[in-house]
Amino acid sequence: MKFFPKETDFFAIFDQMASNASHATALLVDLLKNFKDIEDRVQKIYNAEQDGDMLTHDVMKKLNKSFLTPIDREDIHALASRMDDILDLVWAVADRIKIFNISKPSEDALSIAGDLDRTVDVINRAITELRNKKYEHVQDLCIEINRLENRIDRNYKAALARLFEKEPDPILIIKWKDIYEHLEEAANRCEDVANTLEAIILKHG
Amino acid sequence: MKFFPKETDFFAIFDQMASNASHATALLVDLLKNFKDIEDRVQKIYNAEQDGDMLTHDVMKKLNKSFLTPIDREDIHALASRMDDILDLVWAVADRIKIFNISKPSEDALSIAGDLDRTVDVINRAITELRNKKYEHVQDLCIEINRLENRIDRNYKAALARLFEKEPDPILIIKWKDIYEHLEEAANRCEDVANTLEAIILKHG
Amino acid sequence: MKFFPKETDFFAIFDQMASNASHATALLVDLLKNFKDIEDRVQKIYNAEQDGDMLTHDVMKKLNKSFLTPIDREDIHALASRMDDILDLVWAVADRIKIFNISKPSEDALSIAGDLDRTVDVINRAITELRNKKYEHVQDLCIEINRLENRIDRNYKAALARLFEKEPDPILIIKWKDIYEHLEEAANRCEDVANTLEAIILKHG
Repeated sequence: MKFFPKETDFFAIFDQMASNASHATALLVDLLKNFKDIEDRVQKIYNAEQDGDMLTHDVMKKLNKSFLTPIDREDIHALASRMDDILDLVWAVADRIKIFNISKPSEDALSIAGDLDRTVDVINRAITELRNKKYEHVQDLCIEINRLENRIDRNYKAALARLFEKEPDPILIIKWKDIYEHLEEAANRCEDVANTLEAIILKHG
Repeated sequence: MKFFPKETDFFAIFDQMASNASHATALLVDLLKNFKDIEDRVQKIYNAEQDGDMLTHDVMKKLNKSFLTPIDREDIHALASRMDDILDLVWAVADRIKIFNISKPSEDALSIAGDLDRTVDVINRAITELRNKKYEHVQDLCIEINRLENRIDRNYKAALARLFEKEPDPILIIKWKDIYEHLEEAANRCEDVANTLEAIILKHG
Repeated sequence: MKFFPKETDFFAIFDQMASNASHATALLVDLLKNFKDIEDRVQKIYNAEQDGDMLTHDVMKKLNKSFLTPIDREDIHALASRMDDILDLVWAVADRIKIFNISKPSEDALSIAGDLDRTVDVINRAITELRNKKYEHVQDLCIEINRLENRIDRNYKAALARLFEKEPDPILIIKWKDIYEHLEEAANRCEDVANTLEAIILKHG
């Protein structure tokens, strides 16, 4: 076995990625709740996104150099890519609040961001359980991720309907539609993570 | 051979997925033609989308549990995912008509939805012929799918141009632009299905 | 060895694809700089996009028929797909200028298109160096692609902020936002090309 390099602990990096994503979604909820010091709060989410980039780059580099992987290469690639996407989208939402010079928060954005934060927390627990080979727990947590994603999807559509019904200013409609779409896209990437986790446990369970 | 589970008939599930997609596009054409009972018609398309989700989940589960597959795993995954995308987008179009509280249909949307319905019908025939190993027929049908996708793409752009030329209300522009984009995206996913079918027959032909 | 067909020179096709993409981005810069004969200039970019489609189709067909490939099949597929995406998006930008009947160019669009043109030039050099197995050069060029992509991303956001700050007409906001998004998406696909190139050299270096 001396010929093989020490096996990379991909689960440990996934743990870090998921914690980092949780940190970012909590910051986003905080930003939408306490709508002040925008610049500073957006910067903190940017920092998390940059940390996430480094972790993703680390996974990809180690994946390309590994002969043996504890789970299928394609699943490692998918998990890392989709968790990176979540962070990118959380950062995109925060950034748009600054770019669009949003002066007043939206109840709907806060509510969806809260559910997104909950979903990422469940992803954290699912990744811990995957590492512990508690596959039935992972399965249950995936169902919970899907349930939350469905709720976000419904709330996203309700938010869009309310926006078009109540907001007379087309420019504000453009801005919030864009923000809601990025939030919903982040939830879709959470669902992709759940699908990848389910594929992994089907192969190993 | 007793050690291997009975091989899953993926083609039979693909047949069901394609029929279900055809059902949904026909319902969408119907909704855009007879612009009434919106709520009820949108619900029927939602039901088709939910049926599609179950079929996709079924394919993925069986794929992850299969040792042997009649065609490459990646191609089964791509076919199921892209057909699921088509249904999601058809449902998104219908849902937006409700969410945006659209009060008057658009000739352009009806015309594009009609071509989308035709494209999905050709996908149905292509999947039947793939099952029958009539690879030359599949090839011809893929060319037909691409021809229809090109037509939808041209009509989508013409519809956008007309929308910006004729519609003075920016909010209606936002709504219809969004609907046209989802229709065109559905056609792109049909093209992806054709590309996957072509990859399959190149490997088996 | 007589049983195997002559190995396809995928690098030669990638060279052609990259040259073709460079040609298209140069035409786009030219269009945004000399804002006249729009129809004619857009047509030339369309022609490049059509040439790109044929090259992509050629790669995919040969890939599906090849027993042996010089680099991993998935990497060949990703390189071809992402370079095709770049061309599609360059063409989409040009086409929207026509579809939206844009009457006045934008400094920001020209500046981003200029950087996109530079990025595609670096991709050209990276592909030449990959063919020559100069893996360290490829690595350096990938870093350069990422640096340019980051610059485009910053300029895209600055352009969006300026658009919402200075443009009072919501319809013009919709049009330019759409154009900027397509430009930025093209830069994202350049970053994907760099990631794929890095994966290839990690496996071969």
